[in-house]
Amino acid sequence: MSTPRFKKDKEIIVEYESQVKEIRAQLVEQQKCLDQQTEMRVQLLQDLQDFFRKKAEIEMEYSRNLEKLAERFMAKTRSTKDHQQYKKDQNLLSPVNCWYLLLNQVRRESKDHATLSDIYLNNVIMRFMQISEDSTRLLKKSKEIAFQLQEDLMKVLNELYTVMKTYHMYHSESINAESKLKEAEKQEEKQIGRGDPVFSIRMEDKYQRRSSVKKIEKMKEKRQAKYSENKLKSIKARNEYLLTLEATNSSVFKYYIHDLPDLIDCCDLGYHASLNRALRTYLSAEYNLETSRHEGLDIIENAVDSLDPRSDRQRFMEMYPTAFCPPTKFEFQSHMGDEVCQISVQQPVNGELILRFQQLQSRLATLKIENEEVKKTSEATLTTIQDMVTIEDYDVSECFHHSRSTESVKSTVSETYLSKPSIAKRRANQQETEQFYFMKFREFLDGSNLISKLQAKHDLLKRTLGDGHRADYMTTRHPNGLFKTLTGTRRARPRSVFNVRLFNGNLESFIKPWTTELTHSTSGTHSEACWGGLCCLPSLFSSISPALNRVSPHAARVLFCLSLIRL
Amino acid sequence: MSTPRFKKDKEIIVEYESQVKEIRAQLVEQQKCLDQQTEMRVQLLQDLQDFFRKKAEIEMEYSRNLEKLAERFMAKTRSTKDHQQYKKDQNLLSPVNCWYLLLNQVRRESKDHATLSDIYLNNVIMRFMQISEDSTRLLKKSKEIAFQLQEDLMKVLNELYTVMKTYHMYHSESINAESKLKEAEKQEEKQIGRGDPVFSIRMEDKYQRRSSVKKIEKMKEKRQAKYSENKLKSIKARNEYLLTLEATNSSVFKYYIHDLPDLIDCCDLGYHASLNRALRTYLSAEYNLETSRHEGLDIIENAVDSLDPRSDRQRFMEMYPTAFCPPTKFEFQSHMGDEVCQISVQQPVNGELILRFQQLQSRLATLKIENEEVKKTSEATLTTIQDMVTIEDYDVSECFHHSRSTESVKSTVSETYLSKPSIAKRRANQQETEQFYFMKFREFLDGSNLISKLQAKHDLLKRTLGDGHRADYMTTRHPNGLFKTLTGTRRARPRSVFNVRLFNGNLESFIKPWTTELTHSTSGTHSEACWGGLCCLPSLFSSISPALNRVSPHAARVLFCLSLIRL
Repeated sequence: MSTPRFKKDKEIIVEYESQVKEIRAQLVEQQKCLDQQTEMRVQLLQDLQDFFRKKAEIEMEYSRNLEKLAERFMAKTRSTKDHQQYKKDQNLLSPVNCWYLLLNQVRRESKDHATLSDIYLNNVIMRFMQISEDSTRLLKKSKEIAFQLQEDLMKVLNELYTVMKTYHMYHSESINAESKLKEAEKQEEKQIGRGDPVFSIRMEDKYQRRSSVKKIEKMKEKRQAKYSENKLKSIKARNEYLLTLEATNSSVFKYYIHDLPDLIDCCDLGYHASLNRALRTYLSAEYNLETSRHEGLDIIENAVDSLDPRSDRQRFMEMYPTAFCPPTKFEFQSHMGDEVCQISVQQPVNGELILRFQQLQSRLATLKIENEEVKKTSEATLTTIQDMVTIEDYDVSECFHHSRSTESVKSTVSETYLSKPSIAKRRANQQETEQFYFMKFREFLDGSNLISKLQAKHDLLKRTLGDGHRADYMTTRHPNGLFKTLTGTRRARPRSVFNVRLFNGNLESFIKPWTTELTHSTSGTHSEACWGGLCCLPSLFSSISPALNRVSPHAARVLFCLSLIRL
Repeated sequence: MSTPRFKKDKEIIVEYESQVKEIRAQLVEQQKCLDQQTEMRVQLLQDLQDFFRKKAEIEMEYSRNLEKLAERFMAKTRSTKDHQQYKKDQNLLSPVNCWYLLLNQVRRESKDHATLSDIYLNNVIMRFMQISEDSTRLLKKSKEIAFQLQEDLMKVLNELYTVMKTYHMYHSESINAESKLKEAEKQEEKQIGRGDPVFSIRMEDKYQRRSSVKKIEKMKEKRQAKYSENKLKSIKARNEYLLTLEATNSSVFKYYIHDLPDLIDCCDLGYHASLNRALRTYLSAEYNLETSRHEGLDIIENAVDSLDPRSDRQRFMEMYPTAFCPPTKFEFQSHMGDEVCQISVQQPVNGELILRFQQLQSRLATLKIENEEVKKTSEATLTTIQDMVTIEDYDVSECFHHSRSTESVKSTVSETYLSKPSIAKRRANQQETEQFYFMKFREFLDGSNLISKLQAKHDLLKRTLGDGHRADYMTTRHPNGLFKTLTGTRRARPRSVFNVRLFNGNLESFIKPWTTELTHSTSGTHSEACWGGLCCLPSLFSSISPALNRVSPHAARVLFCLSLIRL
């Protein structure tokens, strides 16, 4: 380890001092780094506070705007008839229900964003403030310890310096003593060599020489003792230097490898954990806002699922009973006490009636075949329209895809609702089909109206001329089932829809004359005529409604009418 | 069915006319209702358009504010050293990473709300506009059909009126004819009765009477014929009346029970389905915004999970290599060619050294026991602080509970981050504990520094005096394991953290002299001294790092050092 080259005190000291100077500079630098780290933290925490303060403002403004928006339309609707109705029985037309829920959702969002703003201001920002305080305080305390450790380290380095200098001193002295001893030994050798083989020596000379030898020997002994003493001192000093060197290196190692990281940890004490909690508070608020928002959207989605033209039509007709209640049945008015109130089948009328009946029968057969064709075309057209209006073109997911880059996503949005020419084409096509449907539907109505009249006459004649035939009352086939539900993937309607008594039950009295005859009829084949019964006997109906939820509207009518007939 | 009371033409006609008048009024009312329904729809659709137009504005303003907020802080950070670093190697201090992700999230939200606004304006509103157009057009077409149906119905009622009047006429005539016939029959009876038991009759009288009887008979016959004719006409008229009555009732029934609902359905054609799609577009946009927002929050949550004081400390020390690189080891500087560079153990130094070694040994034993106690207290205090700073107090769910009522939810918010006195108490407690920890830690450092120095000397002496003892170099126990990770439920750190070469690998050259001796040592018990090795030999370390992810930091050091020793 030691170089073969001799190093003098000065050289070694200069090297050592420069090494220590470097370390001292590092220690100063370390203090600065700790300061700087905390400064950066305090700055980051200040930025976070400013950020959340500003975001709280934005959220509050957003909240207020949403509240204003909801309030504006709420105020408008509160005065409407619908709203009065809503307050009374919560029974709204399904689109109006959606509209109310939309407004509710905006109010919910408004509240949630206000809550978010409040949590930012009164919780999140407070936490950042406290973390900032903590960081500053911990820095101060950590620096105190760092200062102490550095002082200790400098003491160790000074000690090494002292020990090293002592070693130098004693080693120098030891070298000096050694060289002096060597000089004395040389002198002694010289003296001994001079009186060696020469016999012509005078007495005085002999005496003089002996005292000189003794002197030299004494000096040598003295120098030997001095050398030994210095040599031991030098050895001890070197040993001390070596031990102190070991201790110093250990201290420096410990300081750099263990104590410095520990000091940094002292500065960090709880910083990450507290930051974690502050950010988790923010995340908790955001996630909860999201959950609330999602709940609200689910409520709207349910309402959208329940958009139902059939129950809305019922509600609509109930809203205007004077317009939609069927009039009382026209009764036969006996003229001037005419006692006959039924078809007379006496001769010669009988033959005519039979002929007429046969004509009606064949006419009806032809008409029905013709009208069935029209009905089929009409239904097929309706299905086409149904397919057109239930096309699933509402997914806008692709507008929300985020690329990692910062480029705007706006460009894709305008393409989502298909291109405008395509929409125009689609709409033109839809209107054309609609036009055709109306034409066919009108044709069908004309046909079915004629059939209805002729069928009524036919049935009456059949009953009158009846030869054991069961009475067939009102066999007019109606194009029911033509209006299938147009909403997309609609779920089974809740039972309550059926339980609503049309016209508050008043329809019963109106419709009774129309249906009593029906109940007299014992045939189950003409069940479709009792559409009105669906409304007039809700209590009866509700008893079979669970079964109806699983069957088609048409089957429901049949089921219901069969239940009527069983009475 | 017929009342016993006689009804005259006029009475019947008045009743009938009033009944028809009522129906006619209803028909007018029905048209009005259809108008009104469509008016309501158009109004609703207008409200929806206004609503979404206003909401689009609000969303756009919100988006712009968020963008401004993000931009403001982005601009600020872009110029910082961190950001330069970020762009270079994406290796950030974990809190700074959270901060950047927070800003990214705001930008994401900004973009998403802009997209939302765009979808409202260019898709949702457009749909409502089209539904409104459709409703108006369908109303027009439906009303045309309604008008036609009502005309037809009126024709049917007029026909019944005509047929009824014909019946009245023929029935009246029949009654007249009957009464005239009866009159004739009475006259005949009178005539016959007059010439019954009386014989004194003159010839002229006889002739006269015969011609009179003949005349009466003729009249009677004539009246009989007239009556029969009128009776038949009356029967036919009544039959026609009954048949037409049946047909009329059938038509009225059909109109009210089938055709009117069908007409309403015509007005509804596609209304619910299109509304469904428009609202689903809104829902799709909102749900997608939510998903995007959630993704962003998850990214932040991941970053919060990764808040890690240990890897941050490493990053921090790497940032300032000049301050934290350990200095070169102090080497023994041989003085003036001193050839001995090790402890001299010759007599008489030997005895002293042995004595000193023994003293060091016993002193160290005492010091270590004392310091172990301090360490335990210090560790326990740190654990307490750790528990304090990782308390899970960040759940703000209760602020977002919505009651059905409209009352504000704000009142609950201020209670969430606990009450302020409670926080103050908690913080005071925390700071007190912190104070105590720093005191204990300082005490521990003082002790361990002394131990470090004495141990170095002890070990050197042991090696020097060694009688077959294995060399124990640098056994200084360091309080490693004291700084456990303070973040709450931290997940296993990703391997990459370990793979970063501290000081870009330059530390290797600095630390080598400190570790070469370590590798010469064959004892595995002093492995903790090689903290530096953790940094200086990353390639070696990475080979065992998968195993380290599953063990404690302390165990990791031991594992690593064992692997070093195996070299």
